[in-house]
Amino acid sequence: MATTKAAHGLSQDTILVLMPCDPIKDFTDRLEAKFPGVTIRWQNTKVASGLLMTKDMPAELFDGVTIVCAFQIPDASLVPKLRFVQLTSAGADQCAENAHYKNPDIPFCTSNGAHPPQIAEWVIGSWLSHQHQFPKFRDYMKDGYWEPPYQTRVQDSPGLRMGVLGYGAIGRQCANLARALGMDVVAFTMRERPTPESRKDDSYCVPGTGDPDGVVPSKWFHGTTKAALNEFLAQDLDLLVICLPLTALTRNMISREQFEILAKRQAFLSNVGRGGHVNTKDLIEALEQGLIRGAALDVTEPEPLPKDHPLWKAPNLLITPHVSWVCGDITRRILQIFEQNLTALSSGTPFVNQVNKEHHY
Amino acid sequence: MATTKAAHGLSQDTILVLMPCDPIKDFTDRLEAKFPGVTIRWQNTKVASGLLMTKDMPAELFDGVTIVCAFQIPDASLVPKLRFVQLTSAGADQCAENAHYKNPDIPFCTSNGAHPPQIAEWVIGSWLSHQHQFPKFRDYMKDGYWEPPYQTRVQDSPGLRMGVLGYGAIGRQCANLARALGMDVVAFTMRERPTPESRKDDSYCVPGTGDPDGVVPSKWFHGTTKAALNEFLAQDLDLLVICLPLTALTRNMISREQFEILAKRQAFLSNVGRGGHVNTKDLIEALEQGLIRGAALDVTEPEPLPKDHPLWKAPNLLITPHVSWVCGDITRRILQIFEQNLTALSSGTPFVNQVNKEHHY
Ligand SMILES: NC(=O)c1ccc[n+]([C@@H]2O[C@H](COP(=O)([O-])OP(=O)(O)OC[C@H]3O[C@@H](n4cnc5c(N)ncnc54)[C@H](OP(=O)(O)O)[C@@H]3O)[C@@H](O)[C@H]2O)c1
Ligand SMILES: NC(=O)c1ccc[n+]([C@@H]2O[C@H](COP(=O)([O-])OP(=O)(O)OC[C@H]3O[C@@H](n4cnc5c(N)ncnc54)[C@H](OP(=O)(O)O)[C@@H]3O)[C@@H](O)[C@H]2O)c1
Repeated sequence: MATTKAAHGLSQDTILVLMPCDPIKDFTDRLEAKFPGVTIRWQNTKVASGLLMTKDMPAELFDGVTIVCAFQIPDASLVPKLRFVQLTSAGADQCAENAHYKNPDIPFCTSNGAHPPQIAEWVIGSWLSHQHQFPKFRDYMKDGYWEPPYQTRVQDSPGLRMGVLGYGAIGRQCANLARALGMDVVAFTMRERPTPESRKDDSYCVPGTGDPDGVVPSKWFHGTTKAALNEFLAQDLDLLVICLPLTALTRNMISREQFEILAKRQAFLSNVGRGGHVNTKDLIEALEQGLIRGAALDVTEPEPLPKDHPLWKAPNLLITPHVSWVCGDITRRILQIFEQNLTALSSGTPFVNQVNKEHHY
Repeated sequence: MATTKAAHGLSQDTILVLMPCDPIKDFTDRLEAKFPGVTIRWQNTKVASGLLMTKDMPAELFDGVTIVCAFQIPDASLVPKLRFVQLTSAGADQCAENAHYKNPDIPFCTSNGAHPPQIAEWVIGSWLSHQHQFPKFRDYMKDGYWEPPYQTRVQDSPGLRMGVLGYGAIGRQCANLARALGMDVVAFTMRERPTPESRKDDSYCVPGTGDPDGVVPSKWFHGTTKAALNEFLAQDLDLLVICLPLTALTRNMISREQFEILAKRQAFLSNVGRGGHVNTKDLIEALEQGLIRGAALDVTEPEPLPKDHPLWKAPNLLITPHVSWVCGDITRRILQIFEQNLTALSSGTPFVNQVNKEHHY
């Protein structure tokens, strides 16, 4: 439904894009044609040490900015006229302290849905790499060792069960892959999903992937209590995937008590949410004591993980430096979401992926 | 359709099972109940050095044997009354020199379909492990090195193309997984598949897996000529999966000329068929010269690969010692196929997975 804002489209807006790449001319040309009068500024944030922080950017960059597309949102004082934020991340936890974020009138949207294909690949790839013992065979290659027949024991996935803690955009593509492997899938969400309608997800989704209708899980759990979580974890899980946002409710969700439940089938733990969901000390112990068969972590607490942190040396573990979201195609997908939201902003129609600021995701 | 053979069921038969595990009582009990009078002998073939060969087994084991279920079929002289063979392998190439195999009246059936879930996991797992650079990150773990953001480049699979050379039981489950990843799939078979009916496959299939209706490939190629093969390979492949039987026609199929075609998109080569499909010298060169981005080989020529063979040291390569078929569930699946075929033998109805001895698979 059109609102008064639609009257001037984006002609009085200044868009600031902060992304780790040079401006994409196709995209900026299209925006300028679609929204006459709009001003677009683009800062490549990729620097030798990693990511250029807003505090290290020239002050003029922020003059008059009303719309930001970025991972790190500039301090409210730098962009006092801000009216819309497109996050390039799937989570919004990095914004919690931003004054504009606290303003209910400024919509924040995530890039939820741009990451699931590659993150689900990371989850399934690291699971299969563990199950099929690729690291061991790589070690054997160094010595030219051909293991004799019938020494290797492998458990394949048909009939095994994956639990998805956070059945959102990422969880749904993990489930889609697990189904193709012949696995059973059980889901956990914060809110109840009693009806087929309530199981649907209308956030952005790469065509042909995911589970937008929510039909994959054979069982669906929900809640915010420890009892609800533990009941879900007790479902004979072989693989637990954590793809939650980090909120007060999800911090430290998995600690000793939960590892003891997961020990039932010696589940494999895959964390692509945030390091803060898991108690690191308890995880190291669970790996050392064999409560779980192994783990793959794309996120740790803290990040970067210090060079001498004991987690690096825990057995049966893969750590990657928060890269599961990386893919050549991600910029294109994020800009697609952003463009869709700019159209919504100019016409006063609903946004895609709008953050619920009460829940912080 | 019942034949005269059905008259006495299997009451005059002696079954010899040669498998790398102890007898499975459930199974033998069920056979004895189902086929009154049948004799079952079972030899565990697992020994410290690998696999016990038939020449090293006690001669009495073979007395009066009419039905064999094994990987290695005993010499014809040991089992002169043989009338049915259930191979525990998906291929039949190891039987080529067996005199009974050459007898058109003795049906040989494969265990085709018992292997696809785990082999397709191996294919997709090694592909994702390469694409997401897990070996590099494992190396970084040793030094506690957290790569700074935006250094890693990853290409995810949506929109990439997998070519399946040999669209049989294994190829179809690889395709099913590739579809879930958002990939495009093109298929190659020996025989033409012009109609939807002809694209179906009625061999044994683990429920919920594979592509029994042959609906996944966007394009289907076929033939036995080099021109047909090269046309298929020129389809902008990102990933080529070889899951062919080894026959006179498929030996040495992939050599320098083919690697030069695959260089177009620097395809990744995955071979789970037989080592003999690929010219090893040319493969090493293709890896060293970057014609292909990498390779995963579960099969090599020769096998075992000698300790000092140069293939061990080629870059961007994973070698595993012919284990992609291994899984805890395989014995159960093979015995299911065998039981189905014993029922067919006793009732004179068609077998599942019968080898076409002209084509050797
Ligand atoms: N490693 C990386 O590079 C990377 C990249 C992208 C994202 N991530 C992380 O992954 C998270 C999920 O991303 P997404 O795109 O899948 O998000 P999403 O679509 O918003 O899904 C989040 C899911 O988590 C559930 N959830 C939230 N709070 C919960 C709670 N307290 N208890 C149980 N379930 C809860 C939600 O339940 P409801 O449906 O009931 O709300 C929803 O199903 C992000 O927030 C981010 O932290 C990591
Ligand atoms: N690595 C391991 O542990 C392992 C385990 C099991 C099997 N294998 C290997 O994998 C092979 C395939 O197994 P499967 O169960 O998928 O077999 P399958 O169902 O019999 O499929 C074989 C496929 O190869 C095609 N083919 C045969 N000759 C060809 C030729 N000259 N040119 C092009 N295509 C040709 C067939 O075409 P048509 O459909 O037109 O006949 C068929 O599509 C086995 O024969 C074995 O060598 C390896």
